[in-house]
Amino acid sequence: MTRTLAWARRAAGAAAGALAALALVSAAAAQEPTAEEQLASLAGALDTAWLLVTAFLVFFMQLGFAMVEAGFVRAKNVANILMKNILDCAMGGLAFFAVGWGLAYGVSGDSAGPFAGDGQFFLRGFDNWPSWIFQFAFAATAATIVSGAVAERTKFSAYLVYSAVITAFIYPVVVHWAWDSHGWLSAFRDDPIGANGYIDFAGSGVVHAVGGTAALVGAVMVGPRIGKFGPGRKVNVIPGHNITLAVLGMFVLWFGWYGFNPGSTLGLSGGLADLAAKVAVTTTLAAAAGGVAAALLTRALTGRYDLGLTVNGVLGGLVGITAGCAVVDAWAAIVIGAIGAGVVIGGVWLLDQLRVDDPVGAVSVHGFAGIWGVLAVGLFASEAGIAQAYGESDRYGLLLGGGAEQLGIQALGIAAIVAWTAVTAFVLFGALKLTIGLRVRPEEEERGLDVDEHGIEAYPDFGSSAQGLFVPVAHPGGAD
Amino acid sequence: MTRTLAWARRAAGAAAGALAALALVSAAAAQEPTAEEQLASLAGALDTAWLLVTAFLVFFMQLGFAMVEAGFVRAKNVANILMKNILDCAMGGLAFFAVGWGLAYGVSGDSAGPFAGDGQFFLRGFDNWPSWIFQFAFAATAATIVSGAVAERTKFSAYLVYSAVITAFIYPVVVHWAWDSHGWLSAFRDDPIGANGYIDFAGSGVVHAVGGTAALVGAVMVGPRIGKFGPGRKVNVIPGHNITLAVLGMFVLWFGWYGFNPGSTLGLSGGLADLAAKVAVTTTLAAAAGGVAAALLTRALTGRYDLGLTVNGVLGGLVGITAGCAVVDAWAAIVIGAIGAGVVIGGVWLLDQLRVDDPVGAVSVHGFAGIWGVLAVGLFASEAGIAQAYGESDRYGLLLGGGAEQLGIQALGIAAIVAWTAVTAFVLFGALKLTIGLRVRPEEEERGLDVDEHGIEAYPDFGSSAQGLFVPVAHPGGAD
Amino acid sequence: MTRTLAWARRAAGAAAGALAALALVSAAAAQEPTAEEQLASLAGALDTAWLLVTAFLVFFMQLGFAMVEAGFVRAKNVANILMKNILDCAMGGLAFFAVGWGLAYGVSGDSAGPFAGDGQFFLRGFDNWPSWIFQFAFAATAATIVSGAVAERTKFSAYLVYSAVITAFIYPVVVHWAWDSHGWLSAFRDDPIGANGYIDFAGSGVVHAVGGTAALVGAVMVGPRIGKFGPGRKVNVIPGHNITLAVLGMFVLWFGWYGFNPGSTLGLSGGLADLAAKVAVTTTLAAAAGGVAAALLTRALTGRYDLGLTVNGVLGGLVGITAGCAVVDAWAAIVIGAIGAGVVIGGVWLLDQLRVDDPVGAVSVHGFAGIWGVLAVGLFASEAGIAQAYGESDRYGLLLGGGAEQLGIQALGIAAIVAWTAVTAFVLFGALKLTIGLRVRPEEEERGLDVDEHGIEAYPDFGSSAQGLFVPVAHPGGAD
Repeated sequence: MTRTLAWARRAAGAAAGALAALALVSAAAAQEPTAEEQLASLAGALDTAWLLVTAFLVFFMQLGFAMVEAGFVRAKNVANILMKNILDCAMGGLAFFAVGWGLAYGVSGDSAGPFAGDGQFFLRGFDNWPSWIFQFAFAATAATIVSGAVAERTKFSAYLVYSAVITAFIYPVVVHWAWDSHGWLSAFRDDPIGANGYIDFAGSGVVHAVGGTAALVGAVMVGPRIGKFGPGRKVNVIPGHNITLAVLGMFVLWFGWYGFNPGSTLGLSGGLADLAAKVAVTTTLAAAAGGVAAALLTRALTGRYDLGLTVNGVLGGLVGITAGCAVVDAWAAIVIGAIGAGVVIGGVWLLDQLRVDDPVGAVSVHGFAGIWGVLAVGLFASEAGIAQAYGESDRYGLLLGGGAEQLGIQALGIAAIVAWTAVTAFVLFGALKLTIGLRVRPEEEERGLDVDEHGIEAYPDFGSSAQGLFVPVAHPGGAD
Repeated sequence: MTRTLAWARRAAGAAAGALAALALVSAAAAQEPTAEEQLASLAGALDTAWLLVTAFLVFFMQLGFAMVEAGFVRAKNVANILMKNILDCAMGGLAFFAVGWGLAYGVSGDSAGPFAGDGQFFLRGFDNWPSWIFQFAFAATAATIVSGAVAERTKFSAYLVYSAVITAFIYPVVVHWAWDSHGWLSAFRDDPIGANGYIDFAGSGVVHAVGGTAALVGAVMVGPRIGKFGPGRKVNVIPGHNITLAVLGMFVLWFGWYGFNPGSTLGLSGGLADLAAKVAVTTTLAAAAGGVAAALLTRALTGRYDLGLTVNGVLGGLVGITAGCAVVDAWAAIVIGAIGAGVVIGGVWLLDQLRVDDPVGAVSVHGFAGIWGVLAVGLFASEAGIAQAYGESDRYGLLLGGGAEQLGIQALGIAAIVAWTAVTAFVLFGALKLTIGLRVRPEEEERGLDVDEHGIEAYPDFGSSAQGLFVPVAHPGGAD
Repeated sequence: MTRTLAWARRAAGAAAGALAALALVSAAAAQEPTAEEQLASLAGALDTAWLLVTAFLVFFMQLGFAMVEAGFVRAKNVANILMKNILDCAMGGLAFFAVGWGLAYGVSGDSAGPFAGDGQFFLRGFDNWPSWIFQFAFAATAATIVSGAVAERTKFSAYLVYSAVITAFIYPVVVHWAWDSHGWLSAFRDDPIGANGYIDFAGSGVVHAVGGTAALVGAVMVGPRIGKFGPGRKVNVIPGHNITLAVLGMFVLWFGWYGFNPGSTLGLSGGLADLAAKVAVTTTLAAAAGGVAAALLTRALTGRYDLGLTVNGVLGGLVGITAGCAVVDAWAAIVIGAIGAGVVIGGVWLLDQLRVDDPVGAVSVHGFAGIWGVLAVGLFASEAGIAQAYGESDRYGLLLGGGAEQLGIQALGIAAIVAWTAVTAFVLFGALKLTIGLRVRPEEEERGLDVDEHGIEAYPDFGSSAQGLFVPVAHPGGAD
């Protein structure tokens, strides 16, 4: 007898709790669960399966972020950016366990207020595990966006603090606003603002614009890398050390986005499977359009097909479609994705003009394209799309004849999200600057952060200039 | 209340369409859906979940292809091959949206002809989203195979054209022949040719031999890389720059193949779950046998365990089992996989003799092993296997006593597929050669394609010889 | 008509077998299957889907292991370690097909004995495909752990033998003990030892401690690398060539662990979906705690945040939670993960003192943290946790008031597992040492294994010192 069979036998006993729960709703509690009850149980299991599998895909985006960021920094700072990517996900898990979930969705009494949740901290009295793992994966995404924008010059200890604060506090409050049924912006309120409420299906605003805005504040406050901007209007190119890693990361992110967007149906039963499939299609088309648009646009502007911007163009297409993926038609997904890539390219140019140094393009990809994605819902959401995902409504995309009201709500929502994030991030980074400091010393920055902060060189066999400075650690790690 | 609960409440309204559809088939339309109707709906949701998850895995193979190809080219051409891999998938998405699906499965009236579909271009009047995303992922696979074979010397603009044509036209026609119920070769016709029709469960022929044949035509017409073939019969080794990437890509491809083959059941309900699991086992055993056979064979032939050929041996085993994975027994999967690896190694040797330069082995892996996989069905398909996957039949594998008829149909099918692809690819590459040209200038090829075509160097911190030629772009990408 | 629709039509016939089976249990065999029968069939399909998807994730861990190990070795031995990782998975597949499954779960008559299975070799008379693919993925994991510990100095031919023996014999016997319903330790026996039997939900002991113990025996018997240990107590650092690869591998492993642990419910119906979700949460929290603990601990001990040890700390947290993930509460998962990281760091230090050379930390991560994970069940398992996963019991975690009996059983179980593995591995490596030899010649070790064993250099474009020794092979691989 295999473990499968043995387990089934055991499970018959172990599942007593689940069956007992079913029995409570059974007309005759002493009987076997009825076919209807078994159907409901099976539908619930399928919905849980969907949440779990898509949560795993969203988690996998951590690898995507790590590789994109690693590829876009110099070899001397690779270990540092990788360590940050591991720790924002690890600390994010603990912070979201302790505080984040509670502020996002927690309820202590009958109901929560419109600003934030107020219960289930440290998951006390909690057993909604499928939702927690799914929401954790999203929270980790928001936190990790920032690390790229402040890469190559930020103190590790400052990083640990701000990444925990974003996951525990700044991001969860926005989630509550937009996605909890008590949130003031939420499309899931009994009486949502502007008929449909703020529509942000998988989080162009809630996740990406939050991360991108915090990234912008961080990049401004920590200042540009040494040598990035010369006298006058001169902008120097500081190429990343490994474009292959960036492409690897991009494909992992695209793959993970199939969890991010389709998974945001939060289930498959009751007609949601069709919606999830449609979301997969709009997500694909927007990513594809973003890649093609970026390649052609860079060729037109610079005479060359730019790989770095094409990577970010795909990501801009994905970020752009994230809010509207459930409510726009296939052709509109292509338009949104292509414009998303344009927004990214324009954003990179704009930040250079403003002398803001964002080594990986995080502000443009997640911030600017995230804002675009939220507004695009107000322009392109179709009547049938809104009906399928949010219920019948006569307010939909402006360009499709649905009036300006939805666009107005989208603008209000994203303005509130950006403002909240900018203010709290400013206070956070300001406090860090005044206390432990945000930035490493110039000589450490020149030498690279890997040696001083981590006592390591990423590629010792390849004879980089930092090799002579390598200091063996007392208790060497796995790599000794 | 969490987003989960809120969503369920909303979904009760949003799913009105699905329930209405159910109600139409309900005996008493005014009543709740019956248990049978709910069961059918839930079975449909599970089938959709399977299509979506396996489509995502097939999409992820794009990363596998990108990394295998990147690893097998020289450092000076890495950005170029990566850019091609991003764009064949991005352009493929748009091309398959506009034209490809319509030629493969589209129907304008009651029925389509035996040669190609004729409707649903630009997905007009279309809502079969799960099928589209699954078929798109397959189409992108066929297109990406070619890029490796013509790597390191092909013009980027020519690449953009041919990759779009393959995805939009050459590949979808073959899909229609073999997999649409109207196709002349199709096992799904009401009256299939040769009793069972052409059996190619997941596409050894439809996907891999199409890609491999186009790759061969491309490699011949663009000609070998400078320095690959010396005077007389001399063949020079041009090692790839990073074998680790190739292995990374191989594992990603193997992983993705669990979407490619098991996902080709297109659902799980009604007994298909068992079939999908069996397909996962045959796929595993063929890949394993391919790897072991390649390692031992190269050791026997050259005295060394060859890593590059072992990577391609695993892939040859996977390609070989793809047609027959649902209809052969476990032991036969091992034989097919091992022979697949042998076919790859023989193919690499043969192409060297013919002075055809295929830097990554794409022709051998996808073309030759793909043809082998199609023929292997005619040799090894078991009676029970055919019955489980295609219905009872007395025609099955020649070596198992099922007669030669199935082998004949397989040979006819693969001959038609190879001929179609060879002719159309020849016209396509010929037209490109006469117009915009297929090949970069010799000095550009010597310098590497990354600098001239993309203004980038893949690994600037590692002091490669191309560094001095780096030309900063005006509006630098994410990596500036 | 699409392949989907065509397939459904075909499937109606193809699924005749499944329906026939249902009909056998139907009261009126001539009728359609009842709703109950259809429900059971659908529940079975969902359970199969879960086994398949999680098996694929577990398989993907092969990439994680390959990249962690590749990153932690020197550039001159990369091709060798990659080849080993491909082949232990490929040979493992064949060995588990031929012998492994039979010893683990095979039954020839009515029942199997307490020591090992005794039937279904070469999968004769077998069709439990979902279980085979899931168990194969686990078996491949156990085998691959060893390669890292003996990296950079072990003969390839010796490796091929021992990796086959572990997958075919050493590991399956332990599986039978602990997971088959006939095994003497099994929690699934009718009358398990110590009331609950040995609780090891996903294999901290069965998989990781087996791999880690064999790794320790191998590392001791093959001896340290040249230059690792100097005179007196001197320990030299031999840094890995690419820490980015190690981090990449770690994220892949974490992702794959969502198959390893949650997948070990072996299904989702009947209340198992909730259990799987809880397991995903405890797994996440333990990994997160392991990462944070390792970073802070290395900072406290060495003044620097050590990336290599943080990678291994995350893995230590994951290995530690693997036994108890279904039976401990969220807070306990955090404690177990943090201690797991501490165990890894202590283990690395201890092995250095004992002059045992383990280049990647496999013994500490899988062996020591695996033992810790098994014992942690005896300390932290909650009463409700045991009830949910294994059935009601008054024996649970010592620290939660459940008495010492479970801890005693856990200690007995892990002692037996470690003893079995140590003895059989000692005999195995001893026999290899006396016959074909375990270790390459010193000059080959100095030059690197890639050139002599594989005729390849991993990174030829980067001018490593080995380049001059490159010997082109006669029939070059894909990379020629």
